[in-house]
Amino acid sequence: MTSEHSAVTVLGLGPMGRALAGAFLDAGLRTTMWNRTPGKDKELVERGAVSAGSPEEAVGASSLTVVCVVNYDAVDAVVRRGPVTDALKGRTVVNLTADTPVRARDTATWAAEHGFGYLDGAIMTPTTTIGTPAGVFLHSGPEELYREHRTALNALGGTHTHLGEDIGRAAAYDIALLDLFWTAMAGYAHALAVARAEGVTAQELAPFAAGIGTILPPLFEQSAEDVDSGRHSGEDNPITSAVSSMAHVIHTSEAHGIDTGVMRAAEGLARRAIARGHSTDGFLSITEILNPR
Amino acid sequence: MTSEHSAVTVLGLGPMGRALAGAFLDAGLRTTMWNRTPGKDKELVERGAVSAGSPEEAVGASSLTVVCVVNYDAVDAVVRRGPVTDALKGRTVVNLTADTPVRARDTATWAAEHGFGYLDGAIMTPTTTIGTPAGVFLHSGPEELYREHRTALNALGGTHTHLGEDIGRAAAYDIALLDLFWTAMAGYAHALAVARAEGVTAQELAPFAAGIGTILPPLFEQSAEDVDSGRHSGEDNPITSAVSSMAHVIHTSEAHGIDTGVMRAAEGLARRAIARGHSTDGFLSITEILNPR
Ligand SMILES: NC(=O)c1ccc[n+]([C@@H]2O[C@H](COP(=O)([O-])OP(=O)(O)OC[C@H]3O[C@@H](n4cnc5c(N)ncnc54)[C@H](OP(=O)(O)O)[C@@H]3O)[C@@H](O)[C@H]2O)c1
Ligand SMILES: NC(=O)c1ccc[n+]([C@@H]2O[C@H](COP(=O)([O-])OP(=O)(O)OC[C@H]3O[C@@H](n4cnc5c(N)ncnc54)[C@H](OP(=O)(O)O)[C@@H]3O)[C@@H](O)[C@H]2O)c1
Repeated sequence: MTSEHSAVTVLGLGPMGRALAGAFLDAGLRTTMWNRTPGKDKELVERGAVSAGSPEEAVGASSLTVVCVVNYDAVDAVVRRGPVTDALKGRTVVNLTADTPVRARDTATWAAEHGFGYLDGAIMTPTTTIGTPAGVFLHSGPEELYREHRTALNALGGTHTHLGEDIGRAAAYDIALLDLFWTAMAGYAHALAVARAEGVTAQELAPFAAGIGTILPPLFEQSAEDVDSGRHSGEDNPITSAVSSMAHVIHTSEAHGIDTGVMRAAEGLARRAIARGHSTDGFLSITEILNPR
Repeated sequence: MTSEHSAVTVLGLGPMGRALAGAFLDAGLRTTMWNRTPGKDKELVERGAVSAGSPEEAVGASSLTVVCVVNYDAVDAVVRRGPVTDALKGRTVVNLTADTPVRARDTATWAAEHGFGYLDGAIMTPTTTIGTPAGVFLHSGPEELYREHRTALNALGGTHTHLGEDIGRAAAYDIALLDLFWTAMAGYAHALAVARAEGVTAQELAPFAAGIGTILPPLFEQSAEDVDSGRHSGEDNPITSAVSSMAHVIHTSEAHGIDTGVMRAAEGLARRAIARGHSTDGFLSITEILNPR
């Protein structure tokens, strides 16, 4: 490793940016950082990281810059400015900010026009997993660039998957997985509200909610082949049974004055699937309603 | 065990009723069964179960009757008829049909008026788990009655938890957990639709979706104490960051013409939480919007 390759810059010191910078430091990389609002780097400076006075100064310190801010509007606010673009020439940006595939493609085009390397990535696990084997990172963009910076990225721990050269692919997976994650979290929040209205605490419900969590991964994996081929067997659990359960959730919630917008929207999709002839199919036949082939 | 206690009746032979009857048979219990639509009992008869000609004949054959139909309207259609009520006198019904706490309480009152024992239960796992250690059963109602029939219920395998004497408690947990389950499944279906529109197959997405599934249980358990005490720290992942992710899901979905009702409803709750002063809190602060203390 050249010294250039053992240095990394982190732009953005929110909870995730701080976790990334900390992991780079722990792995012995010379870490330079910058954040829009000052003062978030104190602990990292104490641990040996270098605080830069501007983003251009920060990116100039390393061949690799990792960007992790709230979204691509924030990325643009930080990076799409003359001095920063100039400083990036010949270097590489790995953008671990979450946003849409369209924005990732647009940023890659802009990077190419300005002569710097660009990889897009997504982090699928919480800050606490960074630097541990539990972290999950998705990457897309030029394979060669990915190989070149893989050692530095490995300093973040966890598993790194290169999904292909299409720069939008990491964001596509990210969007789909965030869709699942936040919808499930909305379901948990709603479940907690219903439980509380029924006199059941979060601590009482949580072990059983965790049990529900553990049955999801095998269901996801077992159904995938059928979903891809448009088969949605409802033999063990027909969509009509799902609608019946959903109606119970809605009735009980409404009896307690709890908003049912999320469940009503889900139930509406299931009812549309039934109306379109999926009554003996499984619940995942709503994918055909969401996204007709 | 008296011979009466080694006999069980199952009313309802949908996928779940058939699984239950099969597990009772496997455990060596004399199993009698009935279903509204004939013909679903063939395989079970071959394995040694007795097919009854009417629900009254069926309940008369055992001291314990397990009911498992689509909902309590169906339970009432089967059980709340003179001949069946008469035949049930002095016996016990364990109702493993999913419905609301209100319906469970109403059914218990009716059972008491007609002189038979009543326990309400809920099955939290798929048919494939019945008779295996993976099954999860919740029960509520008179503890003594539960103890009396525990041996028979254990024949279903898995873990059985008696949640207390309040007959509505199993249904309350069930509603909350079904809320979580079906909302998460709606999230997965939507994720699959978005992925497909981006050229990512279910089989490509599934391993990562399973990964999201595995991070949920610890999140549920770790947050429970905070939720109970109204603390919703957003230190590692503020609700504003969640809203940003949700907006990306909505934009990308809409660009592909995919319905966004579920995510819009969830995002609306998060925005309301932010407007009410939760901007530095975590996403689960939406429970305060759903169900103000
Ligand atoms: N936290 C997690 O568990 C997690 C997990 C997976 C992925 N992610 C992703 O990681 C990224 C960062 O998340 P986060 O948890 O660190 O918190 P965040 O709230 O999403 O982002 C905070 C960061 O964005 C910066 N920022 C916001 N608007 C800006 C602007 N207009 N100009 C410049 N900087 C701006 C903030 O700077 P200031 O300090 O100046 O406000 C801060 O550095 C997000 O895309 C998120 O989706 C997070
Ligand atoms: N399947 C699962 O994985 C699962 C998991 C956990 C809990 N559960 C719960 O278990 C219960 C049964 O579910 P299931 O999977 O077996 O399928 P289901 O479709 O929910 O229920 C089918 C059963 O209900 C009967 N039924 C429906 N309407 C009726 C009526 N008006 N009168 C008499 N019987 C009627 C059906 O009889 P016919 O054959 O005559 O239509 C059949 O026996 C539900 O409450 C469900 O929520 C199921």
